[in-house]
Amino acid sequence: MDNIKTNTHISQQFNAELEDIRSRVLAMGGLVEKQVYDAVTSLVEGDVKLAETVIVNDYQVNAFEVAIDEECTQTLVRRQPAASDLRLIIAVIKTITDLERIGDQAEKVARMAIHLAETERPRNQYMEIMSLGKCAHEQLHKALDAFARTDVEQALAVAQDDANVDQEYEGIIRQRITFMMEDPRLISTSLNVIWAARALERIGDHARNLSEYVIYLVRGKDVRHISLEQMEIEARGEQ
Amino acid sequence: MDNIKTNTHISQQFNAELEDIRSRVLAMGGLVEKQVYDAVTSLVEGDVKLAETVIVNDYQVNAFEVAIDEECTQTLVRRQPAASDLRLIIAVIKTITDLERIGDQAEKVARMAIHLAETERPRNQYMEIMSLGKCAHEQLHKALDAFARTDVEQALAVAQDDANVDQEYEGIIRQRITFMMEDPRLISTSLNVIWAARALERIGDHARNLSEYVIYLVRGKDVRHISLEQMEIEARGEQ
Repeated sequence: MDNIKTNTHISQQFNAELEDIRSRVLAMGGLVEKQVYDAVTSLVEGDVKLAETVIVNDYQVNAFEVAIDEECTQTLVRRQPAASDLRLIIAVIKTITDLERIGDQAEKVARMAIHLAETERPRNQYMEIMSLGKCAHEQLHKALDAFARTDVEQALAVAQDDANVDQEYEGIIRQRITFMMEDPRLISTSLNVIWAARALERIGDHARNLSEYVIYLVRGKDVRHISLEQMEIEARGEQ
Repeated sequence: MDNIKTNTHISQQFNAELEDIRSRVLAMGGLVEKQVYDAVTSLVEGDVKLAETVIVNDYQVNAFEVAIDEECTQTLVRRQPAASDLRLIIAVIKTITDLERIGDQAEKVARMAIHLAETERPRNQYMEIMSLGKCAHEQLHKALDAFARTDVEQALAVAQDDANVDQEYEGIIRQRITFMMEDPRLISTSLNVIWAARALERIGDHARNLSEYVIYLVRGKDVRHISLEQMEIEARGEQ
């Protein structure tokens, strides 16, 4: 009986540890989401102060990554988890790497915001970047939500919508090439817009990676590098 | 006695497993190095066939990533490694993610090579891309070498030389902006050169990540997100 009690106790502690890791990942995700949102806002509104805040706050994202990584390693050593617990740890180690890189991309957007704030604002107020930014932010939000609720269908939705981000991005590049050709004085500004768009497109890619880790976590299946159709079959456990 | 024998036997098997993982990472690294080299060559020499080979072969890089990841998970389950063995597994899981992304960047360079092969070749034969490519390839090679020999000084050298790649990259961007301003007909071509340069610059960043994992592996210290000076102190165990 005592043994059972002790085991239950240990397993409760262990569950609390895993829960703590999960909630820290979500806290990190919340911070990264805010960074992306603020970076896009700073660019669209020409708000240099907000852009500087985003750049300064990137260290918080990095600190989350290092701390959660350390906690995962400690848990591996102490608990030697198996099956779904181990998958959670591995999924978290990968998830925080992508979250940290999303943070880097947000910082890049903020840097472009500062450059662009120095030049004349376009009549459309960078509407195209706002639209792409909204799309990328939404993908990130959905991926984090899928992680929080271990929701395979939500994770699939992120992968399915990845093409939207890419399409908006391609549209911006094409438009900017036209602008540059029509007026070479717009080349410098256009390149800054292109870099910002590129960073947002990369955020979409990272969100897709996050959703793949959710499917791995829930189904134990590695769905990277396969077609969307195959991914759906694997994730839904269809034959 | 029997127990000791069994333990020795298990530990020998375990060592063989770890050795196998290490050598597979190096094989993956060798493939990725070749992909980078071939991608740069295809661009510089306008060799469309070689570029297509690089694009087709990317699936091999992906397959390596998935297989090694699986092997690491199996080892975690079976062996529940601690200390430096656990660090090796964690360093490998991170290393192969970066190697896979270097493979993606090589593929991007190859795609740009195909676009650029359709346009008139510049008189300098894309010497600037060759130079940047050589620099990025060298960084990757040194990082893999540092991993193979668990050589902290070599890993530090990669971090120290990261600035070279960035400088060459910045030079290319500045030069291309000038070209585009002088002759708007060069905008499309210049953007393709810029994308290729960007991909090579990213390869330099990933090589730096690889070198950070080597320091983690050898010293057990997380040296991400710190200054080069701090990194040297941590890696060399100085006070």
